[in-house]
Parts: sequence; structure tokens; C-alpha cells
Amino acid sequence: MLGPPSREKWSSDFPRWFDWVIETAEVYDYGRYPVKGMGVWMPYGFQIRRRVLEVVRGLLDSTGHEEVLFPLLIPEHLLRRESEHIRGFEGEVYWVTHGGREELDVKLALRPTSETSITYMETFWIKSYRQLPKKYYQVVSIFRYETKATRPMIRLREVTTFKEAHTVHESFEDAERQVLEAIEVYKAIFDRLLIPYVISKRPEWDKFAGALYTIAFDTIMPDGRALQIGTVHHLGQSFTRAFDFRIQMRDERLDHPWQTSYGVSDRVVASLIAVHGDDRGLVIPPSVAPIQVVVIPITPGDEEKRGKVLTYTAKAAEALEKAGLRVHVDDREWERPGAKFYYWEAKGVPIRVEIGLREAEQDTLTIARRDTLEKTEVPLGEAGNRIRELMAQIESSMRERAKSFFGERLLRTESLEEARDWVEGRRGIAEIPWCGRESCGLEMEERVNGKVLGTPWPEEPVEEGKRCPLCGRPAVAWIRLAKTY
Amino acid sequence: MLGPPSREKWSSDFPRWFDWVIETAEVYDYGRYPVKGMGVWMPYGFQIRRRVLEVVRGLLDSTGHEEVLFPLLIPEHLLRRESEHIRGFEGEVYWVTHGGREELDVKLALRPTSETSITYMETFWIKSYRQLPKKYYQVVSIFRYETKATRPMIRLREVTTFKEAHTVHESFEDAERQVLEAIEVYKAIFDRLLIPYVISKRPEWDKFAGALYTIAFDTIMPDGRALQIGTVHHLGQSFTRAFDFRIQMRDERLDHPWQTSYGVSDRVVASLIAVHGDDRGLVIPPSVAPIQVVVIPITPGDEEKRGKVLTYTAKAAEALEKAGLRVHVDDREWERPGAKFYYWEAKGVPIRVEIGLREAEQDTLTIARRDTLEKTEVPLGEAGNRIRELMAQIESSMRERAKSFFGERLLRTESLEEARDWVEGRRGIAEIPWCGRESCGLEMEERVNGKVLGTPWPEEPVEEGKRCPLCGRPAVAWIRLAKTY
Repeated sequence: MLGPPSREKWSSDFPRWFDWVIETAEVYDYGRYPVKGMGVWMPYGFQIRRRVLEVVRGLLDSTGHEEVLFPLLIPEHLLRRESEHIRGFEGEVYWVTHGGREELDVKLALRPTSETSITYMETFWIKSYRQLPKKYYQVVSIFRYETKATRPMIRLREVTTFKEAHTVHESFEDAERQVLEAIEVYKAIFDRLLIPYVISKRPEWDKFAGALYTIAFDTIMPDGRALQIGTVHHLGQSFTRAFDFRIQMRDERLDHPWQTSYGVSDRVVASLIAVHGDDRGLVIPPSVAPIQVVVIPITPGDEEKRGKVLTYTAKAAEALEKAGLRVHVDDREWERPGAKFYYWEAKGVPIRVEIGLREAEQDTLTIARRDTLEKTEVPLGEAGNRIRELMAQIESSMRERAKSFFGERLLRTESLEEARDWVEGRRGIAEIPWCGRESCGLEMEERVNGKVLGTPWPEEPVEEGKRCPLCGRPAVAWIRLAKTY
Repeated sequence: MLGPPSREKWSSDFPRWFDWVIETAEVYDYGRYPVKGMGVWMPYGFQIRRRVLEVVRGLLDSTGHEEVLFPLLIPEHLLRRESEHIRGFEGEVYWVTHGGREELDVKLALRPTSETSITYMETFWIKSYRQLPKKYYQVVSIFRYETKATRPMIRLREVTTFKEAHTVHESFEDAERQVLEAIEVYKAIFDRLLIPYVISKRPEWDKFAGALYTIAFDTIMPDGRALQIGTVHHLGQSFTRAFDFRIQMRDERLDHPWQTSYGVSDRVVASLIAVHGDDRGLVIPPSVAPIQVVVIPITPGDEEKRGKVLTYTAKAAEALEKAGLRVHVDDREWERPGAKFYYWEAKGVPIRVEIGLREAEQDTLTIARRDTLEKTEVPLGEAGNRIRELMAQIESSMRERAKSFFGERLLRTESLEEARDWVEGRRGIAEIPWCGRESCGLEMEERVNGKVLGTPWPEEPVEEGKRCPLCGRPAVAWIRLAKTY
């Protein structure tokens, strides 16, 4: 029996594998559009993105979030209102300066994120604690003039799938409760997509510009680098003060409400691709696969037999569609079955159904799993149910595989050297005891040659006796370091 | 019995009514965002927009269109490639000139439309007639530095709901066939939304910049002005030549393929609102209403009776949801029933269900139609079916009402004076015989004091003996004129 496809290219040269897979599977055209850091979602990729967004929207809508759509352009004076915020983003904002042949009076920023424009409008919309909590979100393009090397779907200048949520609360505590809710929503999103993660509280020096603190989700790429895939910020009153946004509080006072914001991006799709792929291409979890079952007729040369196979194929496809599956029949005549197998494997369709004369005559289907390449033959009458069961099995074995890969890439050690070897060897994320001081954190980045992701969330007590390997002070937390994208 | 709500404000001061309704019904916040011509889709408006887009996407997907997503930014040299095109758009393009603190080497346009960027990428994707026809579409923001007065959802500088389709064909004829398909798709969209229209071939001097010809859909606003709500362009080979985009043709030659493009915008939602509204606010067709049934408990002061009403309300809402309806229960305690009626009428929810003690005790529901305000009482057990029937009736009477309003606003006359009175009196669209010459067409605009919309599509033969009222030559077509937005 065939084993699952190898993951040699996938792990040994991940960036190249990733470029190859998004091109071959026609997900995202990158590198040819004549603006650096911007690419095109192609039809198949767009459908994956759409299904992923359905998961995201479904979870947000069912927890009382309301979708809105704000303008792309933010006038300079608005973006500058909160000083930490503009300091954080100033270096990477795109500016519109001209309309037609005229120079604009006010420069307009392409939104790098929308705290400022949304807070500004909230001052008109929200007057009383009675309207709170208020949870808005939008799915939009954001723009960052990245100076680092850009990468398709991972580090873009136009992030085309930015889901940003913005919430308003009557107290610090309620905003903190919202942070927890946001974390639960994100856990549910990544769990649904079978993407493993660690949750860290980002260090002070790496929190969102304008936030009290930032909680982040990181996953691990096949090459051992960490990828930030979601962030949740407690904004405190930074923006409500900057915009003098005040509401009537429960005790009749007028005061500035509290806010949170949280976002996920194209990287959700990027990590879906990265985490599950193999050397043959994409492996898409059945729940979000645009096509769950591809049906490939293998037609004999004989005209009559050919007709028999095609008739049976149509009948089988109809039965599978009736069973509620997303089915595509690949009946391209000029393409050989082998080429079709290759094509749909690259696209990561979870189930391939092969129909030849034997199947047509015996009223069966030959079914191949994309993840393991295992084949079985089932009676047509049972096919809908069998495929449904198989898809559940595929989901669970994909989850297990991703989890075990991820688990092997977490190291907890008290030794700086071990941590350094781990991180430099691209083996994943290392955790070491930390005294809590920024100076030691920054020095660890130097010594380990990686980036601090932060400390575990929820907070974990550190066992007695653990010490910061740099200064020797008692450790207050484990701190995570990794190579990152 | 109550008649339907008046349409006094709706027709006598439509622009003001429109501003009022989108604010009161919380559809679109306009005029407060600090960039001219840009507004915010609020949660309720966003849900209407979402349902409308579902109709649009459904019809495009089922006719073989593939959704994609292209970058917002188009480098100057790309936008300038087709000379007619840039001439048409140059005056209204927004330009990004800076990234961070640096000036960009190449100015980047905010897309005013995407023919140039899409054609550019098609040169990589499409190599052979075998891949044709190819039909892409995307739903994106486009930007136009409008110098005319801006209006919410009707004339914006950021058009946030631009559905643009772009297709490629192996021949002029196949592109023409695509124009017909696009027209059928748009007819289906507007029919579904109960929006009446005329279809005109735009005159040469008003076609899309770069097109061979443009077919347009216009509807009529309550104040008698025409509103363009959709356009379809046969692009010929303008863009494929400009980009030297060549493919292998059926006869082995390499040649430039043919293209079409077609778009609808925020104006689809604007016309949905305008066409169906009345002095109480929105009237949304049940098929696209975010909430189809709002349930309002009318609670007596007595605690026990109150409990009875609320329990029954929950039971009724559950039954209606089970019947597949989109239901919302307004159980806000601090708001009086009258205020709730007013609130949901403004939001245009098709059906209101009132539940008081009588209904709770008799196992019935009192049902009010938004369009006519008629009330009936039905047994709870039949409510799902009855509401379903009622919604079908509402759709058909809304369609009839819109059609009859529209029909009364079309005038065919041979007299320039009558046409002028009609158009100047804001009574709608006038049709007069036309010799086909641009000079007469332009003079008619002067004389009638309106804008030429074009000639009827499909082409209509003009009866013998009709003459152009300006030059006296035999008429070749009726030409439509109106005040426009």
C-alpha cells in the first residue's frame, strides 16, 4: 500500500515549496503583478479564501459581532490623533496626495488598520453604556509599505484579507472579558481549520502601537519558523481619549469608554496551506475545500463502453451532489487521467473518485484520499455516507498530523545554548525562564538569534528555583523565542 | 382600513428623503466621515448590501463567472497603456505618491476600474482559445475624484460595492454573445430586486472609455431623474492590442482576443432603497430583507400576564425560525411598542408580528405588512405558511407598484416641446425621434435640457415618416433623454 506523499520539499525548502504550490494550485499569482508585495487571488484560491472567511464570519456573527465597512482613506489628521499609534505606523503608510491633476489639501492614508477612523465614527454612534458592549468588524484590504522582504500571502504590502474587529466597553474589565472572547473565537477558527498554535502575551516592546497589551497566536511553518496568525489587543482608553470619545456611564458620569481590537489576515489561508501541504501540493481540510470530491471518468477507447462510463459518471456525480457534497466532474477530453490526478492532487481536493468500465458495470466507485493516497472501492448506493465518514476521518487525521508536527517543535529548556541550537536549527519555538526585564529579553534575542514571541497565555506559574539564564534572577515566566516570518 | 403610507416626502424632495432614510434606518453614514464622498456601511445597511451581493454573486457564479481579487493599486504605466481609457479617467484618478517617508519611483493609481490590471495578468494566464470564454469578476472598492456634487451611495469618491466582470473571447461575435449574457444576468438581478429599468445603447459620445459600445440600464428615481444602475461594454480588442495580449486561435494563428466588461455598483442598493421606499422609510423586498419578520411583544403591566406574553413570544419566534424565516425579536424593555413600530417600519422589515395577551391566550399572531400596513390575525400553527404566502404577495405587489410608477414616467413624443416639459418637469424619461447624428443628439440635450441616455436596446425599428425634430431627416431611432444623477 502507498504511504502518504513525502514532505521532503515541503520541509527542506519551504519558501520555494510555498511559491510552487500557490502557483501550481492556482491559488495566488505572486511576483508578476507589477507592484511589489501585491498579488492576485485566482479563482481557486479565491474559493478557499471564501470558505475560510465563512468560518471567520460565522464565528463572529454568532458572538454578536456586526459587520461594517469603513472608507479605505484616512485623512492625515485622524491618523495622527493617537501619538503612539502614528509613531508605530508612520514609516509604512502609503499616502494619496493627488486627485486627478490637483494636489489634495489633506493627505489621505491608505488604511494600515482602522482604529482611528472607527473610533472617530463611534463618537457619533455611541452615546450611552446601554449600547455597550458594541462589537464591529470588517474584512478589508490594508496597506503597509513594508521595508522587509515581501512574501506571498505572508508579508504583503496589500493585505487583502484583513478581518479587523473593534469593540467598545464600559469598563476595563469588560474590555478584558472581550479579549477572552476574542481569544475563544480565534481558537475556534484555527481549530476548525486544523491549524495548531501557541498563544503568547507579546512583550511590552512588541505590542500593538496604542495598546495596553497584545495577545498573539503563532503557528509554526514547515521550516521551523513561527508565523503570527492572529492578534488581540486591549486598547484601554488610548483611542477614546485621543478622540475625546465620551459616553454616559452607568453612574451617570460622562467618561471615555474602553476598547479592544483584534485581527486575522491572509496569513490564515497561508497557514492553512503551509500546515497541511505535502510534496504533491495542497491538502485542504474537507470542511473548507471548494471542491470536496473530484470525479474523474477513465474512458475506454471503445465508443459504446465510453458512453457507458460517461453515463454512469453523470449518475454518480448527481448522487454525490444530492448527498450534499461539493462535487466537480473533470471530463476534459484532451487531458489524460494521470495528468488529471496530478492536477487535482496539487489542488488538494480531499477525495478523488475514479470511474472506469469496471466501476460502471459493478455499480461501484473507486475512492482515493488526498492525504494518504489510500484507495477503496465502495458501492454507489453507499458512496455518499462512506465519503462523509471518510471526510471526518481525514479531518481527524489531518488534525493529528498537524498537532504532532507542532508538538515536536516546542522545546522547554533552561539552557540558552540548547535554545539557541533549537532556534538556529529551525527546529521551532524554544521556551526559557525569564526574569521579566526588557533588557534580558532583548539580550536573549541576540543570544538565541531569534525573536521573542512573549510569554505563555494564559499565564503559567514558573516552578520554584528557575532562574533567568542571563541575570540569574528568579524567573517570573517562560519566554518564547523563535525564528519568525 | 389604513391605506399604504404616503409618498409625499419621498417624491417631493427625494434627495432629502434619501438622506433621511439612510440615516434613520442606519444603512449608510454619510457626511460625517471627514473625507468628501466617502461614507460608512453601518451594520443594518451592510446586511442589505450582503443580501444584494448574494443575488449578484449567485447569478454570476451560476453562469460560469469566476470570482477573483486584484490589487487596488495600478502603476501609472499600466493605466496609461490604452490611450482612450486613460483619457477618459485621467481627470479623476487618485494617486499614491509616497510610501512611509519616501517618494515612490512609480506613481500608483487607486483603481478607477480594472481593465488594465486584469488584461495585464490575462496575458500570463490565457494562452489558447481552448481556455475561452473566460469570465472573471471581482467585488471591490473603486475610486474616482468626482468633481460633480457627491451623493451618498449614488455619486461617491469611493464606490465600495463595485462588481466588475471582465471576459475574454476568441471572436468579436463571441464577445457580442457575452454582452447578451451579461444583459440577461443584469435583467435577472434587477428583476429579483423588483427594480424596473430601461436598457439603452449609450450614444457614441458617452460610451465607456476604450469600448466599442456600451449598453446601460437606467431606472427612475422618485423625483423623475434617471439613475444609471448597470453598464455592459463590448471592449473589442482595445485592451488586448494595447497590452499585446495574443493567444493561439482556433486556426493556429496568434491573435488578440476580444473582451467585454460590465459593472454594477452601490447604486443597486441605492435604487433598491429609492424605488421601494415611502414616507415611513425603507420597504425591503422580503427576498433580500436581513430581517423578514420582526416580533414585538406588547407586555401588560401585570407580572404574570407579562410572563405569559414573553413565553408565547419565544415560542412563536422559534416556530417562525423553524419555518425558515429570518426573525428578530425586539424585546427591549425600555422602549415602547409604538416607538418599536416606528423603528422597524423605518428599517423596512416586510412583516411585523405583534403579540399581546390576546394573541398569547388565543394562540394567534397579529401580522402587519410593511408595504400596505394591513393587519391580519392568524393561528400560530399556520403562521409560517401564511407569512410565506404574504411575502410572495408583498413581492408581487411591490413589483407592480414599482412597474406602474416607472411606466408612468416614460413618454414617447415627436414634439421637442413636450419632451422638454416632461424632462424639465422631472416627470421621467422622454423618447423622441432622432436622425442618428451626434450634432442633433447634443443639440437635443440643450433643447430638452436633459441628458441623452441613448437608443432603445434591443434596437427598435422606427415607424415610417418619423423625423428628427431638429434637422428634419428621417429618424433612425428613438432617443431617450432625462435629467440624470
